[in-house]
Amino acid sequence: MTHGLISDELIAERNARARAALDEDYAALGKQLDRADIAIDSITQSISSFSVAVPTWGAGRGGTRFAKFPIPGEPTTIHEKLEDCGVINQLCRMTPRVSPHFPWDKVADYQALREEAAAVGLGFDAINSNTFQDQPGQSQSYASGSLSSTSDAVRQQAVEHNIECIDIGRQLGASDLTVWVGDGSNFPGQQDLTRSFDRYLEAVGLIYAALPGDWRLLIEHKMFEPAFYSSVISDWGSSILAAQELGPKAQCLVDLGHHAPNVNIEQIVARLNRFGKLGGFHFNDSKYGDDDLDSGSINPHQLFLIFNELVEAERNSGSSFRPSYMIDQSHNVTDPIESMMMSADCIAASYAKALLVDRAALHDAQERNDAMAAFQALRRAYNIDVTPIVAKARAEAGGAIDMIATYRDSGWRQRKAQERQRVGLGAGIV
Amino acid sequence: MTHGLISDELIAERNARARAALDEDYAALGKQLDRADIAIDSITQSISSFSVAVPTWGAGRGGTRFAKFPIPGEPTTIHEKLEDCGVINQLCRMTPRVSPHFPWDKVADYQALREEAAAVGLGFDAINSNTFQDQPGQSQSYASGSLSSTSDAVRQQAVEHNIECIDIGRQLGASDLTVWVGDGSNFPGQQDLTRSFDRYLEAVGLIYAALPGDWRLLIEHKMFEPAFYSSVISDWGSSILAAQELGPKAQCLVDLGHHAPNVNIEQIVARLNRFGKLGGFHFNDSKYGDDDLDSGSINPHQLFLIFNELVEAERNSGSSFRPSYMIDQSHNVTDPIESMMMSADCIAASYAKALLVDRAALHDAQERNDAMAAFQALRRAYNIDVTPIVAKARAEAGGAIDMIATYRDSGWRQRKAQERQRVGLGAGIV
Amino acid sequence: MTHGLISDELIAERNARARAALDEDYAALGKQLDRADIAIDSITQSISSFSVAVPTWGAGRGGTRFAKFPIPGEPTTIHEKLEDCGVINQLCRMTPRVSPHFPWDKVADYQALREEAAAVGLGFDAINSNTFQDQPGQSQSYASGSLSSTSDAVRQQAVEHNIECIDIGRQLGASDLTVWVGDGSNFPGQQDLTRSFDRYLEAVGLIYAALPGDWRLLIEHKMFEPAFYSSVISDWGSSILAAQELGPKAQCLVDLGHHAPNVNIEQIVARLNRFGKLGGFHFNDSKYGDDDLDSGSINPHQLFLIFNELVEAERNSGSSFRPSYMIDQSHNVTDPIESMMMSADCIAASYAKALLVDRAALHDAQERNDAMAAFQALRRAYNIDVTPIVAKARAEAGGAIDMIATYRDSGWRQRKAQERQRVGLGAGIV
Amino acid sequence: MTHGLISDELIAERNARARAALDEDYAALGKQLDRADIAIDSITQSISSFSVAVPTWGAGRGGTRFAKFPIPGEPTTIHEKLEDCGVINQLCRMTPRVSPHFPWDKVADYQALREEAAAVGLGFDAINSNTFQDQPGQSQSYASGSLSSTSDAVRQQAVEHNIECIDIGRQLGASDLTVWVGDGSNFPGQQDLTRSFDRYLEAVGLIYAALPGDWRLLIEHKMFEPAFYSSVISDWGSSILAAQELGPKAQCLVDLGHHAPNVNIEQIVARLNRFGKLGGFHFNDSKYGDDDLDSGSINPHQLFLIFNELVEAERNSGSSFRPSYMIDQSHNVTDPIESMMMSADCIAASYAKALLVDRAALHDAQERNDAMAAFQALRRAYNIDVTPIVAKARAEAGGAIDMIATYRDSGWRQRKAQERQRVGLGAGIV
Repeated sequence: MTHGLISDELIAERNARARAALDEDYAALGKQLDRADIAIDSITQSISSFSVAVPTWGAGRGGTRFAKFPIPGEPTTIHEKLEDCGVINQLCRMTPRVSPHFPWDKVADYQALREEAAAVGLGFDAINSNTFQDQPGQSQSYASGSLSSTSDAVRQQAVEHNIECIDIGRQLGASDLTVWVGDGSNFPGQQDLTRSFDRYLEAVGLIYAALPGDWRLLIEHKMFEPAFYSSVISDWGSSILAAQELGPKAQCLVDLGHHAPNVNIEQIVARLNRFGKLGGFHFNDSKYGDDDLDSGSINPHQLFLIFNELVEAERNSGSSFRPSYMIDQSHNVTDPIESMMMSADCIAASYAKALLVDRAALHDAQERNDAMAAFQALRRAYNIDVTPIVAKARAEAGGAIDMIATYRDSGWRQRKAQERQRVGLGAGIV
Repeated sequence: MTHGLISDELIAERNARARAALDEDYAALGKQLDRADIAIDSITQSISSFSVAVPTWGAGRGGTRFAKFPIPGEPTTIHEKLEDCGVINQLCRMTPRVSPHFPWDKVADYQALREEAAAVGLGFDAINSNTFQDQPGQSQSYASGSLSSTSDAVRQQAVEHNIECIDIGRQLGASDLTVWVGDGSNFPGQQDLTRSFDRYLEAVGLIYAALPGDWRLLIEHKMFEPAFYSSVISDWGSSILAAQELGPKAQCLVDLGHHAPNVNIEQIVARLNRFGKLGGFHFNDSKYGDDDLDSGSINPHQLFLIFNELVEAERNSGSSFRPSYMIDQSHNVTDPIESMMMSADCIAASYAKALLVDRAALHDAQERNDAMAAFQALRRAYNIDVTPIVAKARAEAGGAIDMIATYRDSGWRQRKAQERQRVGLGAGIV
Repeated sequence: MTHGLISDELIAERNARARAALDEDYAALGKQLDRADIAIDSITQSISSFSVAVPTWGAGRGGTRFAKFPIPGEPTTIHEKLEDCGVINQLCRMTPRVSPHFPWDKVADYQALREEAAAVGLGFDAINSNTFQDQPGQSQSYASGSLSSTSDAVRQQAVEHNIECIDIGRQLGASDLTVWVGDGSNFPGQQDLTRSFDRYLEAVGLIYAALPGDWRLLIEHKMFEPAFYSSVISDWGSSILAAQELGPKAQCLVDLGHHAPNVNIEQIVARLNRFGKLGGFHFNDSKYGDDDLDSGSINPHQLFLIFNELVEAERNSGSSFRPSYMIDQSHNVTDPIESMMMSADCIAASYAKALLVDRAALHDAQERNDAMAAFQALRRAYNIDVTPIVAKARAEAGGAIDMIATYRDSGWRQRKAQERQRVGLGAGIV
Repeated sequence: MTHGLISDELIAERNARARAALDEDYAALGKQLDRADIAIDSITQSISSFSVAVPTWGAGRGGTRFAKFPIPGEPTTIHEKLEDCGVINQLCRMTPRVSPHFPWDKVADYQALREEAAAVGLGFDAINSNTFQDQPGQSQSYASGSLSSTSDAVRQQAVEHNIECIDIGRQLGASDLTVWVGDGSNFPGQQDLTRSFDRYLEAVGLIYAALPGDWRLLIEHKMFEPAFYSSVISDWGSSILAAQELGPKAQCLVDLGHHAPNVNIEQIVARLNRFGKLGGFHFNDSKYGDDDLDSGSINPHQLFLIFNELVEAERNSGSSFRPSYMIDQSHNVTDPIESMMMSADCIAASYAKALLVDRAALHDAQERNDAMAAFQALRRAYNIDVTPIVAKARAEAGGAIDMIATYRDSGWRQRKAQERQRVGLGAGIV
């Protein structure tokens, strides 16, 4: 299934070396969980069923407006990106879908692309449209906005691009369209805050109308950047009101880095789910703004608390609960393959910890207003080192126990550095 | 009408001294505005019609959890507070209503209280309920929440208190009930984020059901404090969703200090109005958290931008637009009478500046995406010194041109320091 | 040694029930660490040597300016507080010193107080002065500041109070004086930002001059509250410049909740240590402002990263490295004894994790700019569940393996609720 | 002097149309100020003497990591940029110096460049070095830092580049070197927070040693971006400690957008000046992060408060007070010429308002702790519309009364759109 990627023998060989330690740790943890009446294998099973998509653009080095520092062997085409995403999934066994971005990933034959992906073990996840950049040859500019533009022609172009994305997505087997617009303003007064929102609603309504019956339209809000005074869809409030206006197929997507400082994101997750509008996540981490750092690298406890809400939501919502999960990071200082493997690992570990919470004890303490007991119910689960569970799930599916070591051993990047065209310097914009 | 307050002769005498300069400045500004085809008297007329309520509790010195430093002559009863609020309105002529708080302002005879207020020129504005503190003799404690409590008895007590507030309000001639709850949690896990919101909705629904036909229920959100991990109604998103669930008489109240850092509050105002839920304001200013500083003292430009949205909203919404305006500040280092007079002045000045915006030019520039021209349309108005307009409106209504000087001349506080009981030391809580 | 507190038999009995599980987990972790060439007992030994002080005022319920909700059995005198702190240390064996606050903890005979503390196993840590509140009978008011006041008499009173604190501290066996002032302003212009700092420097210099040779003066900075526009010692920059002006006995104290949003506190720790001015910590956690939540309850990863810097600093600085550690929290919704035990546990666990970092691997990766390897060196240690290590250290010293369960079993609070005087309602200030 | 720029006749003609209104407003303001014993002409004189530099790179459109939207006629060479900066100064008469950036502005003959600048009325201000991007052909990469890099060769290259900048600066007549590094990390552990600072200190010390006797080295701190976990010089504390280590020629530069949320920047200005280290400013405005918006567009009151500190500092420091002032903005949605003219105008207006403060009244109120009177001393000055003063100073120097209208009338940009090479699409990095 994963032809031409990393040799399965190498994985097996590295795993053989790591197996004894893993088994020992897994057994010890199993005994510990047994004492709490938790069957470790059931948790491992849940982790085995868990997956998160990776974005094609995340396979390349990211950067800032100041600079981008490419690495040798970095992929520059959708074909090379699929290959690298194949390696990620081959080693972590948790990222079987890629999320493409158009026009960046445009090809002539999408059926062929779908087969190419399948050949490296991948399917396609949510389609991402792009109306925040101008493309060569484009007739209208997004300089003053896209779906909320004052220009009919600009809005029409943006709508048509999104509808084209749906069409491509159908060919690729996707069923979600993620709409993020950078529309907004840099000066007080630059835009009419209400009329621009109304124009957005009207335009996104046209996209919604073109959505196949089993598709979702995911609205992604963002507080700021590229707009630095106001953004049309700046917060979850604007997002959910727009989603309500559109209808049941419209839902809200939460990017962890798109919020105001100090905001309680797990409560936003709970609220969106309470109103039936929790559509999905872009996982990453941040300390300052939309830093797009590796998931859980800055605040792993927050990630756990979000999964705690997701586990609650899953229990309360039943089969209707199927949020779309994607990693969305900018890998400015690491090898993107390493970052995405370890991020998937961290996300899965957060889910595993949330599954380990003694919910009966938690709910009981909540009812009794025993704040300490309720908190400790969460904290006990958070403290548990679930590394063996996630590694076990991975290894059983054919992945690598020690992903970084195995990947580095494989010499993948060095080999690609020989084969692939060199990326030019990213000199930055300002 | 304002018996026993500051002598009208003193006001007249001080005004006589200040009149010539005011007339000169007013005339000069009038000529400047004439060149822009604005009749200064029409703006002055709008300011004359403008009013903002003051809270009874604002008449006393405020403090922090660390300390409160009382001043001699500070009011300690609702009767003394009404007197001080009467002085505020006598001098600024813009605060003809007070907003009471229960149980703080409880009396035996509300009809008498209404007459007492009328005697110093005041009526009653929105009623504020209090379920964030325990009162002596209260059967249930709000230690673990009020409207969202897990205890049926606690929720019932909180609902009944609010319904009693409505009843008192009817006697006082009010028609708004402002509901702010401090409910929330200090620990992850302490409360179920969804169930607590559901309990809140159910309880506030009972209050809503008891609302007279011409009343509004104003929901006030707050990001944090007294709860430091999660708050049930923490942001405008939670607030508007609750208001939508309740029905048309429920609206959202914006306190300027209750938001996350960096948030664009004027856009929140625009969104709430767009969805018919802009119920009112608690005016104050802040640099860090809910600092409750004097309105416009930290960021007067933001206050102007909010009024710019309010003027837009008024034009678009017509007669249905009638948000409730109140000053809500904590006067920790000033004489509260001085702070509230100057705050009313600053709020009115922000409104005057917003009225001076060339809206045709603004909208035209917005349509053309001429960011600089649009911004300058706002900035030109903001730069104008509207002091003479607000002072003129005040003086014509019988108020003081120079409010601080007149107030200090009157010796009001020193006189009250002789008459009133001394406030005890506020030693703070931590 | 801990007469009259919780019965040692109860602790032993509860421990007997928990011992087998602890031994099993400890052994399993020992085997895991062995594989990384770490002797678990050496880590346990370091934890056994670790201690953190608790503040006397933390033994009572805290609150906000809105309300305080007391609990039955809450201590109200220094004698009762010492008793409760004795229980904390009896169960956690990690908090053998209390940090008193004057005038709150004033008594007639400090030698007797010292013996009283010793009788429950406690000594005295840093003395905290208080010039942010007015006390009954005080001749000067701190309403307009203390050490930075424009009034000579006020500054003199504040200096004398601090010198009295030193004198009391000598009698109690302390050797640190922590100086936090709430001095600052609520309005632009209210204070001259430079002259107020100069007055502070002059006044604190007089305190410094009165310091015994082996004492330290710890300067505590805070961004805001009670002052909401400017604070005289608002950040680590002002703090270290003041400490440099004073001399070698002056150092900086870091309270984790006193910083601007998003700030990298661990880097501040590194900078202060780099310049020889890292004096100590007030441990707590926060999400919004100076929330004074339980240590590690919101962001345990940040606490780990701070201890990572402390371990680095200790290695680099040798015996001169002896920062003062104290818990400083406001226990608004929990039993303070439970919160402080669990906070000490979380702080010690963070230290244990920092000790588990493979520093050779970390430094090697840093030198090679291998960001992923460096990060994973930290993350591997952070992921380890060190609960057995801290519990083992505690149990070996006579403490309780399961502190909460043991404490609740003891019925301490219910017993005290019978014996102690009831606390009045804390109605809040605003 | 300003050959080939905008025709002086056009300026004169437009001014003739605007003169009467200006004279009327100026006279009215003069009368108002007379009443406060302020001679308007003395303020106008101070504004005439005021200047602020503009950065060469600011003459082009800026952008974000997502996109850049060029405009027709945008300058792409240092020669075209000088021309545009000449126009700015021709119209506003307040920006007689440009601040170049290397290697962006490299030419073969700097003497010729100096003459070219002089021909359009310009001199050179602080030199900006660039070690945050890699240049084609550069031997070492700044991917892992520059002055703080772990690599000797990288640090040496960065030092040599800065020394080359000094050499170029001498030829251009400059006497300040501004050093901003993007050095930092994206992951906890990635860099040793202390060792990286030590390496920075050592490297910048080599640059300092190469500084001519009458030069200053300006250290610019920045909280985040491009590094998203830690930055080597992240705050004013790190900046001033580094400047102190270096010596008297090293000073600190304050960029208004480089601080944590909510921070009191005017107090930082006061502190830096108190310790003799206030080197200069990069003026801009921001709402979220380093937004680089037009000066005073978001928070004009903060800009006024900063100038209030600068006026205080000037009075206290005498002739030693000579901070370097520069506009540093990213013009993403406006014509850069318009933005820089209006920014200079807003900066000068803030200075004018600060000069209008009644300092005797302010200081007296501060001494008496009369917070309201002190605040009103500032607020009265802030409220004054100083537009006529700044316009008068400009017009008397030959600039345009209405800068935007005159500039647009001139057709400068349209003409340049014919002459200049088109800028390529800035497609952004992520």
